Formats: sequence, C-alpha cells, structure tokens
Amino acid sequence: MSRIYNFSAGPAILPLEVLQEAQTDLADYKGSGMSVMEMSHRGKEYDAIHAEAIANARELMGLGDDYAVLFLQGGASFQFAMIPMNFLEQGQVADYVSAGSWGAAAVKQARIVGNVNLAAECQKDIPTRMPAAAEMKWTPGAAYSHVTTNETISGTQLRDIPETGSPLIADMSSDILSRPLDYAKFAMVYAGAQKNLGPSGLALVAIRKDLAAKGSITLPTMLKYQTHIDENSLYNTPPCFGIYMLGLTLRWMKRKGLANLFQQNRDKAQMLYDVIDASGYYRGTAVRESRSDMNVTFRLPTEEAEALFIKQASEAGMKQLKGHRSVGGIRASVYNAFPVAGVEALVSFMKDFEKRNG
Amino acid sequence: MSRIYNFSAGPAILPLEVLQEAQTDLADYKGSGMSVMEMSHRGKEYDAIHAEAIANARELMGLGDDYAVLFLQGGASFQFAMIPMNFLEQGQVADYVSAGSWGAAAVKQARIVGNVNLAAECQKDIPTRMPAAAEMKWTPGAAYSHVTTNETISGTQLRDIPETGSPLIADMSSDILSRPLDYAKFAMVYAGAQKNLGPSGLALVAIRKDLAAKGSITLPTMLKYQTHIDENSLYNTPPCFGIYMLGLTLRWMKRKGLANLFQQNRDKAQMLYDVIDASGYYRGTAVRESRSDMNVTFRLPTEEAEALFIKQASEAGMKQLKGHRSVGGIRASVYNAFPVAGVEALVSFMKDFEKRNG
Repeated sequence: MSRIYNFSAGPAILPLEVLQEAQTDLADYKGSGMSVMEMSHRGKEYDAIHAEAIANARELMGLGDDYAVLFLQGGASFQFAMIPMNFLEQGQVADYVSAGSWGAAAVKQARIVGNVNLAAECQKDIPTRMPAAAEMKWTPGAAYSHVTTNETISGTQLRDIPETGSPLIADMSSDILSRPLDYAKFAMVYAGAQKNLGPSGLALVAIRKDLAAKGSITLPTMLKYQTHIDENSLYNTPPCFGIYMLGLTLRWMKRKGLANLFQQNRDKAQMLYDVIDASGYYRGTAVRESRSDMNVTFRLPTEEAEALFIKQASEAGMKQLKGHRSVGGIRASVYNAFPVAGVEALVSFMKDFEKRNG
Repeated sequence: MSRIYNFSAGPAILPLEVLQEAQTDLADYKGSGMSVMEMSHRGKEYDAIHAEAIANARELMGLGDDYAVLFLQGGASFQFAMIPMNFLEQGQVADYVSAGSWGAAAVKQARIVGNVNLAAECQKDIPTRMPAAAEMKWTPGAAYSHVTTNETISGTQLRDIPETGSPLIADMSSDILSRPLDYAKFAMVYAGAQKNLGPSGLALVAIRKDLAAKGSITLPTMLKYQTHIDENSLYNTPPCFGIYMLGLTLRWMKRKGLANLFQQNRDKAQMLYDVIDASGYYRGTAVRESRSDMNVTFRLPTEEAEALFIKQASEAGMKQLKGHRSVGGIRASVYNAFPVAGVEALVSFMKDFEKRNG
C-alpha cells in the first residue's frame, strides 16, 4: 500500500489507523459475524456504536445536557434549508454573515424560506477575509443569527465568535473540533462530516434543546429537529457505517488529545504561511488575521506556474492541491487527520519549486 | 472469520464477495493511495464509481433516457416527504394505497403536505394482505398515485402493478431488483438501499424526467428532484462510500444474472412457505396470494414458543429472526444477497424445532 498526501478540501483524508481498524472489521465486526453495514440499527451491536459516538462528540465539544447531538443526512447543504424551515417564520428575520461561498449558499436557501438580513457581507472581497465583530449589524429580536466559521474556498476562518443577541447557529463543516472553542456560545452548530469527522453522507448537529423545541410543527416529520432529538437520531435508519467511521475518528481524537491536535493544526498551517510570507513568489489570498488553519490558499505569479506547481506536486505524491474551480490558485487543506510529514513535504516542495521557477 | 446467517429486515446482509472487495480496497482504492471515503467527489476516481453505478442501475432496471437515476440521502422516509412537497399542490389530491406500516407512513407524511385519497386501505387486516386491483379506487386527475410494493413488517408483496391513470410512484425499498418487473409502468420508484442494494444512508430514485420537471419551484434547492437531475446527484457531496458499495452490489447482481437471482429469490421463499404449509405448527401471517418473497412472516402457537425458537435459532447461527416489535412473531428476511444455504439451514431447524416442540 502506498498512501498519497491527500490535500483534498473534502471528502478529505482520514486517519490511517481509523481506516485500518475499519478494514480489519469490515466483513466481521468484532466477532459478530456481520459487517457494520449489515447490522440492524435497532440491534445491540449497532446501539453501542451509536451511543459511544454521541457520548464522545458530547465530551469533545464539552456540551451540557441542554444540548442534543444528532446525526442527520443531507450534509451541511441540507441544513441550509432545514434551519430556516424550522426557525424562520413569516414576519421574522434571520441574520446571516456572508463572508464566502458557503455563507452565501446558506443565505440563498434561507431567502427561499423567509426574510434574511445580511449582518455583514464581504464574500466578494479580494483579498478574502472575515468581517470584524464591529462590522456585524445584528437585528434586535432576530429569529436567529448564522455564521460560517471557516470558508474552505477562500481560505478564511472566523477567529472570534461574535455576540449576536439572538440564538447563534454556525456552519462548522470545515473546522469543527479543530481548535479551542466554547461551544456553549452557540445555540446550534452543524458540520458535514467529510472534512474533520469522517466520510460524507452525514452531518453532525449539536443543538440546544430549547431552540429545537421552537421549530415549526407543520413540517414533515423528517424535517423537524425535535423528531431526531426524540428518537435519538433513530427515527429512520441512520447512515450506520458513516456514524461508525465518525465514531472511530472521535476515538482517534481522544487518543491524540484535543490540545495536541489543536496545536498541531496551528503549527501545520503556520509552516505553510511562513513559506508564503518569506517568499516574494507565493502570495496568500486571505488577509493575515482571517487566515484559515484548515485551508491554506495562495497564488503563484501566473496561472501557468500554478498548473505546473499542481502537476509536479502531484507527481511527487501531493494530490488535490488545485484551488476550487470558482477561484483557481492553490489550496492545501490540512484538516485534523492530515499528517505533519505531508506538510513538511509540501514546504520542501514549495521552496524547491520557487528556486527552480521564481 | 465466522459469518452468521443474518435474517435482518434491514440494514441487511450484503454479498460476502462485495464486502471482501471493499475490505481489500478500503485504505487504498485500486492503487490511488486513498480510500473511497477520502476522495474528492469531483475527482476522476470517484467520477468513474458514480457513473458506473448509475449506468448499472439504469441497465438492470431497463430504464430509457426518459428516466433519471438519482442517489439521495435520507432514505425512503425522506422520500415520503419529498414526493408530496414536489408534486402535491394545493387543490390537488394524491392517491395512496395503504396496505401496511410503510404505506401508512407514506400517507402520514403526505397528509402533512396536502390532500390524500386512500385508493385502498387494508393495513390493519389480519391475516395481512395486499389489496386486489379491483379494490383500488383511483381519483381521475390525481396529482400522482403511490403504492408500496413490499411491506416488510406484514410480509406482503404487491404481485400485480395497478393501472392508476395518474403518474404511479412506488416505494420499492424492500423488493427493488428482486423480481421481474416492468419499471416503465412507474413514473418514479425509490428504495432505501439497505435491503437489496447496499448500506443505509442512501436512497436510489428512478424518476421520469417529465414528472421531475413538474415539481414545485418554490422549495429549497436540495428538496427539488430537478436539482439532482441537473447536477447528476452531485449538487452537494453525495454519500460516496454508500454509492460505491451500491455499485459493487449492482456489479455482483450483473455477475449473478438477474434471471437467476429472481428465480433463486422465489425458490428461497417457497422453501420456507412449504415448511409452513406442510405443518400444523407454523402459521403464515399473510394470505397466500400476497406472500412476500423477501420477508417470510409466521407465527408459532404461543409467544413462549416464538421466544424459544428465536433463542435456539440464534444459538445455531441464524440471527435477527424476531418479527418487528409492532407485530411480534417470526420474520425471515431473505433479500437478494441472502444465501440459499442459510434458507436450507432454517428449513432444517424449523422441521427439527417442530418435532421437538410441536
């Protein structure tokens, strides 16, 4: 087996030891005589997997009993719709920060459902950035407020969580459990699993029970958060194998230790930003104070140089470095599971590439 | 490795060779240096998996270009809501056949959205059954009509597909691609994957494009069938690993040959019904002409005898034979991937158990 350095923005790299454990148990989970994919979601083997994943998510996020942890399908994109369908009634307004492609996507879906105020808008700014707290204009009495804590495409991260007055909901798809954060500041956070938590096809939702209880009661059953709280994410058959993989990944995080993992994330990103800042050749796309630790985005002097960079990096086993098709450039996604050795390899490559082409 | 005979109603048994192929490739798919779970859903490796799964589903169901094949999240339960949200406008009526728990569940969600006519209703009948075509009362000009082709809990199967006048939509979660069927009779069929097609967390939808085009345009983007047709089920990150497993299962079906598989399904069920009919001890719960080839349901003289049957069968490696908690009794689910040897083992066990206890 020869593993690549996979810089994909998502679905993204998973810890090798997680994959290896899943591989060992794939056709016969712990002597049960069946795969996790073949288990009744109401049987005792799967019950234990489900309960442990919820307990570990709760522990790692430091959530109290006033929060429920849910596993929902449809990814973060489905949450873009489910949130306003539950919480944005006629005559109300919801505040959204739109500071990148994903924030803007959340706004688009909320506007289909109801009335949106843009508390701050800078998704078209170049260089890319997150708005400062002072820029954000919150509506008194808003139904809720919504932020995107990390924008994968523009390579920006919201460093300070704003005080909004209304229940704060955050799309944390690309930086959940990647840095120290007080989750009690949020009424709800959600994340598609396929960046820091596991495979695609699953969203982790942590929601304060009093917010969920306010959800619209006229929706179909699957669309209500309250349903999934009442049924412990077992109203219908959940994505069992995805939850199992997320559970293995959370266990891996506990073994690593959150503080170590968070420090390592800072260090990995800093190694790349240091190369960029020391160079007259590479140019970061985000303003310094908004730089993401998860997605390091930069440009080379020309698109031809970028194409050559991507090609030669790929030949050297560093894959998926191409920036999102909407913006171009280079993007190195270095989520929790991305190894330090891979960042070191990219640092070397960047220095060498600059020497040869700069 | 010691595999059990897994009679679970779903998530259910998968072909062992499918699991073994997935196991081999789990941490390094075909020399790509990454797991299928780590691949960008817009990269060339995943593209090939996605395209082949769609092509094989299309081929196996015999669908023309007027149909789209979609991979959606949320299982069949989410389709219960998505169908009326798309196709049941104010002032319209939809016809539903309610002949078991799943048909009734579909009705419940449709009624949250709009106006439902029960074309036939027999979900509380004992013995359990499917309505005859002559019983079904279709509304002229209905928005659509809906049937459940196999009821997993009551162990019944709709043998003949009715002529409804309006676009016919079928929940085929528990018998899709298990028997000869003219899929062109349906405007849409859907199935949670976790019985005959793959793991949970994924629904296969085949929809006639002219029906999808009629869907409500005021819904959030993820809730429209048209979105997923336009984006080839890649509007957002799909459940890539589930689609991969479904693709491997469809390949396995092609290797087996549909005609062989269908005949084997009939034979497996018949072996069990023969034991029931030859016995004064076991009693089938469904009327003979509605008996399912997928879920064979029967009772023993007492609940104590049933509990002993389940316990001793489990000790002999035949698991998950307990009937659904809402009805009790015994249920042997023998989907496509369930091996003939497992049915033979159950037949022997049933005969022996009757001798010892009858």
